[in-house]
Amino acid sequence: MPRIMKSLNNISRCQAIYRSNNLECDGICPVHHTFIFAICRRPGSSQEELAQEICISKSTVTRTLGYLEERGYITRKATPKDKRQFEVYPTEKMLAILPRIREISQEWNRLISEGVSEEEMAVFDSVLKRMEESAKRLVEGRNAK
Amino acid sequence: MPRIMKSLNNISRCQAIYRSNNLECDGICPVHHTFIFAICRRPGSSQEELAQEICISKSTVTRTLGYLEERGYITRKATPKDKRQFEVYPTEKMLAILPRIREISQEWNRLISEGVSEEEMAVFDSVLKRMEESAKRLVEGRNAK
Repeated sequence: MPRIMKSLNNISRCQAIYRSNNLECDGICPVHHTFIFAICRRPGSSQEELAQEICISKSTVTRTLGYLEERGYITRKATPKDKRQFEVYPTEKMLAILPRIREISQEWNRLISEGVSEEEMAVFDSVLKRMEESAKRLVEGRNAK
Repeated sequence: MPRIMKSLNNISRCQAIYRSNNLECDGICPVHHTFIFAICRRPGSSQEELAQEICISKSTVTRTLGYLEERGYITRKATPKDKRQFEVYPTEKMLAILPRIREISQEWNRLISEGVSEEEMAVFDSVLKRMEESAKRLVEGRNAK
């Protein structure tokens, strides 16, 4: 069995360095890019849905949303059905930086895939997606901390 | 171009949840597993070498090593050549938890690879290793923050 996770985590951490080197923006760190994509993709998501989508603990979601709200990147509205739950919406300030964040992300994907053939990429992507499914199943309902 | 990084980062974050659910240990969080592997693999590494190996910013390395030292997991010794540099060594306390951390890691690798054929894994691993090389090249010398 090759050491998959070492390489995979290294790629992930290199991307974080690349992101922080390429975006100068009021208080936005690499980890926020993932939140920005998720929030803009589905405005109105609950904190729980975001935790599931991003595969991150609920406490981290709560803390990060607090941080983004303070800096004017999101607004939270109580869910009509359950006043203790919140729907999360991007503000104009978040929408304004989305194109640049998307650009950085696409550029990164393009650069790390250089020299990979279409056939190889098809196999890689198929394996990656199955691994993602397995990974999500393995921790399902266990990101409550 | 498939959305590689979303899946890749999700797998990485699910692993962090899995790690923290499977190891109850004095102050050890998922991010420390990576440090533990790197420190035990090459005892005596400098902070700079660790930053490069783990693909993480030098300030995070400094902060994390401080945390691990406080809890008795590592010792630091001044480098003979340059007293401002430190060599990092695992203590008995770190070596004692290494087998369990290795076990969790192997178990995770095995579980997420279930159902992936040998041929698919060979392609996947070859692409992943090339992506890792590209990723490292792209941020080389840029993790100084």
